[in-house]
Amino acid sequence: MSERIQFYTNPMSRGQIARWALHEAGAEYDEHLLDYGPEMKGEYRSINPMGKVPAIVHDGNVVTEAAAICLYLAEAFPEAGLLPEGLSEKADYLRWTLFAAGPVEQAIIARSFKWDEGLGPREQGRVGFGSYDRVVEVLAGLLRERDYVCGDRFTAADIYVGAQVDWGLAFKTLPVLDEFVAYAGRLRARDAYRAAKAIDAAHIEAMRKDG
Amino acid sequence: MSERIQFYTNPMSRGQIARWALHEAGAEYDEHLLDYGPEMKGEYRSINPMGKVPAIVHDGNVVTEAAAICLYLAEAFPEAGLLPEGLSEKADYLRWTLFAAGPVEQAIIARSFKWDEGLGPREQGRVGFGSYDRVVEVLAGLLRERDYVCGDRFTAADIYVGAQVDWGLAFKTLPVLDEFVAYAGRLRARDAYRAAKAIDAAHIEAMRKDG
Repeated sequence: MSERIQFYTNPMSRGQIARWALHEAGAEYDEHLLDYGPEMKGEYRSINPMGKVPAIVHDGNVVTEAAAICLYLAEAFPEAGLLPEGLSEKADYLRWTLFAAGPVEQAIIARSFKWDEGLGPREQGRVGFGSYDRVVEVLAGLLRERDYVCGDRFTAADIYVGAQVDWGLAFKTLPVLDEFVAYAGRLRARDAYRAAKAIDAAHIEAMRKDG
Repeated sequence: MSERIQFYTNPMSRGQIARWALHEAGAEYDEHLLDYGPEMKGEYRSINPMGKVPAIVHDGNVVTEAAAICLYLAEAFPEAGLLPEGLSEKADYLRWTLFAAGPVEQAIIARSFKWDEGLGPREQGRVGFGSYDRVVEVLAGLLRERDYVCGDRFTAADIYVGAQVDWGLAFKTLPVLDEFVAYAGRLRARDAYRAAKAIDAAHIEAMRKDG
């Protein structure tokens, strides 16, 4: 029998993605809330030397990076049905998870810091994500033709890709396109999504009250 | 029986990573060399709407993103022994592949464009990779304690993580640390690495002669 997962997070971080994945996987976990600053620099560095959350420890296995946590939990809890089936689903599962963790993340960050202003075609090739507009168009194109990353079935890829869309809409780092709104709507209706978000929302509310 | 893989690349691109992965997997493939510019914008957009290489098509499955191609080929050619075994290896495999595709890629690009100059702790939290120096330290720390991403055995994770280190040294986007040099040395000694690189080197040489 596997031990309970130790989950290191901050309610206002990408840790929300990992918590959602934990609930989708049906995993039992103990949460450890870390403040930014000293708490992420001390002992915690032995778990994630990057000094950032989220991280999970499961049977001695440390996993960091929100996307990797989603994919790992799918493997560790196969009965949750989050894994792709067959090579065709695996192709989409890997392609779009890596697209969301690479180009989408980079494009959103670059745009939010205005790093991408005035990049020419040559630089767009070097940066890998090309351009913010192209990334948005490709992501919207994917969701125009299917309900979930692998087709008509929710997998762990939808947790990570979905979180990028969900957050993109919430924080206005992605445009309000019909494809994004419809996809986010499907995800927000999920029990695991609601349960996970309710916990983080309660933590955030408590932190506000504490000042 | 599966059909031959169709491989879309440019010899001077991240396509080198995918070619190395194809050789490690022992996959048979037909290559399609694309020039930057019109060739990546026309018909090819139906394969990769991002208009970039590499991409592979295998039995009708399209895979883009160099890291996803490495992981997909490991799944499609299990006899090549590139997959992780057991949850402990899976944890490392996913964690470090996503670390290399996310924070490492972002840190190298940000540094090369000088985007990270003067980022404070708050912004470092937002960008996800923290800082270039931290990413380099964490990557070196991993390779200080083990020969390969999953321990003492080469997996598909080493193709992607290894390519970041190999290119980082070749293009001086990573510092010349003993850990990086030793790891790159292990990878460069591999038959599949040599075979793949020889093909791209010959293409590059031919392109130079053609002017």
